[in-house]
Amino acid sequence: MKPIFRRVALIGKYQRPAAGPAASGSREIIDCIARFVVAQGCELALESETASHLDLAGYATLDVDGIGRQCDLCLVVGGDGTMLGVGRRLASYGTPLVGINQGRLGFITDIPLDSYQDALQPILHGEYEEDVRPLMQACVMREGVCVFEALALNDVVVNRGSTSGMVELRIEVDGVFVANQRADGMIVASPTGSTAYALSAGGPLLHPSIPGWVLVPIAPHTLSNRPIVLPDAGEVAIEVVGGRDMSANFDMQSLASLQHGDRILVRRSAHRVCFLHPRGWSYFSTLRKKLRWNEGGS
Amino acid sequence: MKPIFRRVALIGKYQRPAAGPAASGSREIIDCIARFVVAQGCELALESETASHLDLAGYATLDVDGIGRQCDLCLVVGGDGTMLGVGRRLASYGTPLVGINQGRLGFITDIPLDSYQDALQPILHGEYEEDVRPLMQACVMREGVCVFEALALNDVVVNRGSTSGMVELRIEVDGVFVANQRADGMIVASPTGSTAYALSAGGPLLHPSIPGWVLVPIAPHTLSNRPIVLPDAGEVAIEVVGGRDMSANFDMQSLASLQHGDRILVRRSAHRVCFLHPRGWSYFSTLRKKLRWNEGGS
Amino acid sequence: MKPIFRRVALIGKYQRPAAGPAASGSREIIDCIARFVVAQGCELALESETASHLDLAGYATLDVDGIGRQCDLCLVVGGDGTMLGVGRRLASYGTPLVGINQGRLGFITDIPLDSYQDALQPILHGEYEEDVRPLMQACVMREGVCVFEALALNDVVVNRGSTSGMVELRIEVDGVFVANQRADGMIVASPTGSTAYALSAGGPLLHPSIPGWVLVPIAPHTLSNRPIVLPDAGEVAIEVVGGRDMSANFDMQSLASLQHGDRILVRRSAHRVCFLHPRGWSYFSTLRKKLRWNEGGS
Amino acid sequence: MKPIFRRVALIGKYQRPAAGPAASGSREIIDCIARFVVAQGCELALESETASHLDLAGYATLDVDGIGRQCDLCLVVGGDGTMLGVGRRLASYGTPLVGINQGRLGFITDIPLDSYQDALQPILHGEYEEDVRPLMQACVMREGVCVFEALALNDVVVNRGSTSGMVELRIEVDGVFVANQRADGMIVASPTGSTAYALSAGGPLLHPSIPGWVLVPIAPHTLSNRPIVLPDAGEVAIEVVGGRDMSANFDMQSLASLQHGDRILVRRSAHRVCFLHPRGWSYFSTLRKKLRWNEGGS
Repeated sequence: MKPIFRRVALIGKYQRPAAGPAASGSREIIDCIARFVVAQGCELALESETASHLDLAGYATLDVDGIGRQCDLCLVVGGDGTMLGVGRRLASYGTPLVGINQGRLGFITDIPLDSYQDALQPILHGEYEEDVRPLMQACVMREGVCVFEALALNDVVVNRGSTSGMVELRIEVDGVFVANQRADGMIVASPTGSTAYALSAGGPLLHPSIPGWVLVPIAPHTLSNRPIVLPDAGEVAIEVVGGRDMSANFDMQSLASLQHGDRILVRRSAHRVCFLHPRGWSYFSTLRKKLRWNEGGS
Repeated sequence: MKPIFRRVALIGKYQRPAAGPAASGSREIIDCIARFVVAQGCELALESETASHLDLAGYATLDVDGIGRQCDLCLVVGGDGTMLGVGRRLASYGTPLVGINQGRLGFITDIPLDSYQDALQPILHGEYEEDVRPLMQACVMREGVCVFEALALNDVVVNRGSTSGMVELRIEVDGVFVANQRADGMIVASPTGSTAYALSAGGPLLHPSIPGWVLVPIAPHTLSNRPIVLPDAGEVAIEVVGGRDMSANFDMQSLASLQHGDRILVRRSAHRVCFLHPRGWSYFSTLRKKLRWNEGGS
Repeated sequence: MKPIFRRVALIGKYQRPAAGPAASGSREIIDCIARFVVAQGCELALESETASHLDLAGYATLDVDGIGRQCDLCLVVGGDGTMLGVGRRLASYGTPLVGINQGRLGFITDIPLDSYQDALQPILHGEYEEDVRPLMQACVMREGVCVFEALALNDVVVNRGSTSGMVELRIEVDGVFVANQRADGMIVASPTGSTAYALSAGGPLLHPSIPGWVLVPIAPHTLSNRPIVLPDAGEVAIEVVGGRDMSANFDMQSLASLQHGDRILVRRSAHRVCFLHPRGWSYFSTLRKKLRWNEGGS
Repeated sequence: MKPIFRRVALIGKYQRPAAGPAASGSREIIDCIARFVVAQGCELALESETASHLDLAGYATLDVDGIGRQCDLCLVVGGDGTMLGVGRRLASYGTPLVGINQGRLGFITDIPLDSYQDALQPILHGEYEEDVRPLMQACVMREGVCVFEALALNDVVVNRGSTSGMVELRIEVDGVFVANQRADGMIVASPTGSTAYALSAGGPLLHPSIPGWVLVPIAPHTLSNRPIVLPDAGEVAIEVVGGRDMSANFDMQSLASLQHGDRILVRRSAHRVCFLHPRGWSYFSTLRKKLRWNEGGS
C-alpha cells in the first residue's frame, strides 16, 4: 500500500547549539529515520542545513521554503522549541508536521525516538489524529510604523529589563481600553503557549480549540490583575507606558527591544499549524503525562 | 419619540429575605421606577410576586412566564444574585434584561439606583449596548436516568461535605477522559461565572464572547491540576468517584445531593441571556471598577 | 551493643477502616517488626487495640497512655494520618515516634516497609535525626465557655457547609483585629500542616523550625486576602460572623459544629511531637521527593 | 514637657530623581517640618544632601553617618523606597525612624503629610508604637571571594536577563541542599519585603515578628516549586547554575551582575531597623488599608 504522503521532508534540531558539536548520534538518527521513510515508499528530502550540519550526503535537500512548496509532510526531530521554529516557518504553506523527540517528550513533539517506526508507519499511511493550532501575528508599532514583525505559536511576551523595576503597560482590545498594569511583564499566550511560560506565571490551560488568547501578567503589582482569556478575533494592543530596558519576545526565539510609546499588536494569523499525532492521541492524555496528573503524588 | 420597547416588565428583589421585612424603601423605589417607565410611554407590568410582596396595586401584573411571553424588556431591581435567577427563568423567551442596583454595583447589574433615570431613558429609546451571555444546561445522571436538571448562568459546582475530606472526581469531555482529581470540589464556570466563585478559587477571567467554560478545581490535592478552559460546544461530564456528602450547586441557587457514580453533565443551553447596558458600557470598564484595577493600590 | 531505647512500643494502623477487615498481611507485618525489635534487644509492647484487631497474642500489650508512661520509643506502622493521631495522643508524654509506611511514603512517615530493618536498627542504637514539631491546642468558645477542645498537629480548619455560600470570619491575633474575611473557610496550619491541606489552598511551605502558623483562606472573596504567617506565641482567634452549617476540623480527624458568635482559639501547645528519622534524613529531601522537585518535569 | 528625643534629624527624599527638579513644594514642606520639630523643643539637624538639594540654609546639617552617631531620632519624608535606603544606612547606629509620606501611604511610611503635626508631637514625647524589622546581609561569592556586599530590608532578588530564558538556581540552607529550580528568578524576602515584590510573585505575608525569610520563585517551571518560609538563623545560599545575563538586586536599589557559579549568600544582619508609629498603630491595620481588605469589594 502506498503512503498517502508522497514527498516527506526531514528536519533535525534546527538551530545549532551556541557552542559545541551537534549532539553525538544525531547523524545516525537522522540517517536512520530517512532510510525508514524511503523504505515506506516516500520520496525524502533532507532540510539543507540539517544535511550540511550533520554531513549527510546522498539525499535530496531542500531549504525550509522549498519544503513548504514541495513536500506533503515534514518530520521534525527535536523538542518543542525546535518544532515551534519549524512550525512558524512552514505555517504559510500548510505543511503538516510530525514531531519525533529524542529527549523528554514535549507537549507537541510526542513520538519517542526509540519507537518512532511503530508510530510513523501508520501516520504515513493516513492513520493519524490532526491537531490544528492557531498562530499569532505580532508587530511592534513605533510612531505609527511597524518596526518589527513576527509570528508566534506560543506567546508574545513583553518584559522589563533585569536590572529595572516594573514596566507599566496599557492594554487595549480592539481599541477599547482594558487596563493599565504594572508588573514584571505581560504574556499573551495562544492555547499552545498556555502550557509553556504562561502556565508558570499562573495562567490557565486553554484547550487548542478555544479561539482565544490568554493575557497573563507576570508578578503584577495589583493582586486583582488576574489572567484574562480574550477572543482571538480581535486585536490585542500592549502599549509601553513606563519602565526601562523593556523587550518583546516572540516564542522566546525572536526579540525586539522596546521604547516608551511602542505598541505591540497581536492578531490571529490567517495561517494555522497542523500537527499529526498517532491514532489514539488526545490532548488530555498529553496533559496528564506532562503535568503528572493522576500519579497519586502531592 | 416613542420608546422602542413597548411592553416593559419590572421585577424587584425576587426572593424574599429569609427573615425580616422587605428592605425599607423598596416599595417607593419600585413605584417610582414604574411611574418613570410609564411616563416614557411604555406599558408597564409588575411581576406579580413583587407586586404582592410590596403591596403595590394599580399596575398590571404578570408572572415571570407571562413577562417572558408578553414583554419586550424586563427591568430587574436588585443585585447580581437576583438577576441570575430572573435571567435563567426568562432565557427561553429571549427577553432582554436591564439591571438597576440598589447597593454596590454588580458585574451584570450596573445601573445605580440614584441615577437610573438618566441611564434608563436612552435604553428605552434604543440607545444601549447589548451583552449576550451563554447559559449552561446541567443534569445529574444516576444509573442512566436524569434525576436533577437545572440551568446555570454562572456556574455548576460539585463539592465535598463540610465535615468530610476531599472528593474524587473523574472529568470527561465529549466522552474523552481528562483527569481524575481529588479536591474540595470542582467549578464549571461560564464567562459570566468567571468573575464569581471561580475567580476566588484561582480561575482566570473569560471574556463573554469566549465560547468556553473554565474548569477550576477547588484546593486540588495535585498542585498541577490547574484551571482549564474547554470549548462550550462539547459536553463536560463530572463523575463522582469518591468522597462523602457531596452536592452539586447551580448558580449557588439550586442544589442536588450526590451519590457515588453520579454523573453531572454540563452542556451549552440553546438559549442565551441578553443584558442591556447604557451606551458606552464596556465589559472592561466593569472589570476595572469591580476589581479595583488602576487605583494605584497594592 | 545494647539499643538506647529499651522499651519500644508498636502501633499498627490505629483507626479500623469504616468497613471491611484489616488490610491483608497487616498481621504478618506487625508480627515481623515486633520480632525484629525484640531481636535487637528491646522490650516490646504492642498497643492493645492493634493486638486485638490483628489477633496477635504473645506480646505484652499497653494502651496508648500506657505506652506514653512506660515506653522510650513508639513505632507506628501506617501513613501520615495514622501518625497524626498517635502523635497527638502521645504528645504530653514526649515519647519519640518512628513511622514505617506500608504504602506511598508520607511527609512524616518515611521508612518504607520493605527496608525497615536497615533503617530501624541504627535508630534503635541511637543513630537518628530528630525532627521536633509544634502542636496546636484549639478550643471552641461559645458564650465564654469552652465547648470543644482538641490538639492538632497539622491544622485547624473552619469551613462552610457544603450546600451554603461563604462563611464570614473575623480574625484576631492576641486580641488585635486582623480582618473580616469571606471565604469557603480558613485554615490555620502548623509547619507540619503546611504540606497538607494548606498547600492545596495556596499556602506556602513553612520549615518546621519556624515558630509560626500560616493562615490560609480557602477561595477568599477578596483577592488580596493572601496567606499570612503569624507568630505561634500569640493566640489566633477566628470568630464566626456569618454563614450556615459551619464546622471546625482538627487535623481533619475531630470535628465541632459551629454557631454564629463561636470563637475558635488556637494556641501553641506546651507539648511538641518528636519524630526520629534515619541518619542523613533532611526535611528538604522529603520535600523534593513528595513534591517531585528536580524531576525535569513541568 | 521636654521631648524624649533631643536631637532629631530630618531627611527628604534621598535620591534625586534621574531627571528634573525636586518635587515642587518639597522645600516648603521640609522647612515647615523642621520648624515644627524645633518648636517642640528638639535640636534639629538637616541631612546635608537634603539641605543642599533643597537649598535650605539656617539649619545644622549632618551627613547620614553623622545622623547615626549624633541623633536620637530620624524623620524621613518620602515613600517606602526612600525609607528603605535610609533604614539600611542607619541600621548599624540603631537610630529609630519615623516616616512622613507625601503621597499614597506606604507599608512603613504611614504618617500622612497633611496631618503630620498631630502624629509627630506625641511621638516626640514618647508616645509611639515600636516596630522592629530584621535586616538581611547578603554577599555575592565568586570563586571563594566576596565580590559584592549589601544590606537589604526588603529582599534579595536573583533574576534572568530580559532577553533570555529561565535561570537555573541551586538553593541550599546551611549547606543542606534544598532544590534546583528553573524560573524567571528567586526572591528572598524579609517580613518587611513580604508585602512588596514577593507578594506580587505569589508569596505569603510574614508578620514582622516571624524570624524567617520567604523564598518565592518567580514564574517557576515546576508548578510544585512553592514559596517556602525558612528560619533566618541559617544561611540561605543561591547558586547560579544556568541562565544568561543574571543579576542580583538588593531592595531593588543596588545591583550585582552575576556569572555561572556565583553564590549569593543571605544571612540575618546583627542590626535591625526600628520604625516608630503613632500610638494605636497596628501592623494589621496597615495591611487592611494597603491591601484594601474589608472594603466589601471583589
